[in-house]
Amino acid sequence: MAKAIAGPEIERLIQLLARLPGLGPRSARRAALYLIKKREQVMAPLTSALQIALEKIEVCKTCGNIDTQNPCTVCTDPRRDMSVLVVVADVADLWALERAHAINAPYHVLGGTLSPLDGVGPQDLAIDGLISRAHAANVTEVILALNATVDGQTTAHYITDLLHSADVKVTRLAHGVPVGGELDYLDEGTLSAAIRQRTLF
Amino acid sequence: MAKAIAGPEIERLIQLLARLPGLGPRSARRAALYLIKKREQVMAPLTSALQIALEKIEVCKTCGNIDTQNPCTVCTDPRRDMSVLVVVADVADLWALERAHAINAPYHVLGGTLSPLDGVGPQDLAIDGLISRAHAANVTEVILALNATVDGQTTAHYITDLLHSADVKVTRLAHGVPVGGELDYLDEGTLSAAIRQRTLF
Repeated sequence: MAKAIAGPEIERLIQLLARLPGLGPRSARRAALYLIKKREQVMAPLTSALQIALEKIEVCKTCGNIDTQNPCTVCTDPRRDMSVLVVVADVADLWALERAHAINAPYHVLGGTLSPLDGVGPQDLAIDGLISRAHAANVTEVILALNATVDGQTTAHYITDLLHSADVKVTRLAHGVPVGGELDYLDEGTLSAAIRQRTLF
Repeated sequence: MAKAIAGPEIERLIQLLARLPGLGPRSARRAALYLIKKREQVMAPLTSALQIALEKIEVCKTCGNIDTQNPCTVCTDPRRDMSVLVVVADVADLWALERAHAINAPYHVLGGTLSPLDGVGPQDLAIDGLISRAHAANVTEVILALNATVDGQTTAHYITDLLHSADVKVTRLAHGVPVGGELDYLDEGTLSAAIRQRTLF
């Protein structure tokens, strides 16, 4: 924008809002106007929520989750099955599995997936920590809950190789028809996998 | 969400982000994770930008624009043509006209448009202020830069009636083909208006 319309402070707020994923320059302006209109109801609470988050949020030194306590709520939950370790690429994936109540076990957040094209190598991910956790006496299974993408599967293979020395079963997520999904809209790879991995009715 | 995944502070941040226009629950989680990852680069600057905005931003008592000074930058700009008054529904419209450098005159922000269905009547808009500004000796033209919607045009008619007593020319935006627009995609009303209001080449 060549010309500041409403003072540098508002421009700065718009620029920072535009950096959020999902907001572009236009929607950032709308968001800024909304915040200014809803000053007491939204802007003030959001400011203080951000302030609190800035002060309190930490990365869990055990699993890489983010939380306001360290180790995180998941790692310190006594009702979790500690014989299983669920490996995820990102905190967002951990949250997705928790929302689904998919499994009641601790996690290990890699912080990404191997991606030679983007220059992400094993040293950029929390793989050493994973290997040492997988060697713990109580761990019997490592579930690789990684994306079914090339990078996700490359990472899964790499980790599987490293885990040969550990006395653990390495598993990965099933491929198949998404619940509610229509066969007609699915790709051939998914349909073939769903047939191959069919289960007894 | 039935279960808080990552502590009440993070949930609260996500809930507040989800209230921004353009962000839903899912993108608010992505935004929160992004903020936490980009703690120093984005989260801390955004927090302080919001804090500054909270402290400094005011509604201009003359025109209804928002700014960090009152009267606002536009109202105090000595290079504006003070014989013209541009009436807009919202601050977003004012910003849009300013970005376009469409006109170099002061504005009057109504704060919405008349909308009987939504219970918005004349008393909810800054119409009294407009009428008294339009009666000022130096004002010769009031441009109604309102949306070409039913509510926008209803508001324009209502204001035009009230301005009969003022010695001003009341104008409205031209209808026509948007710059870069293809005739084939335009509705009949726009095409008819573009023909009716054709200009000499």
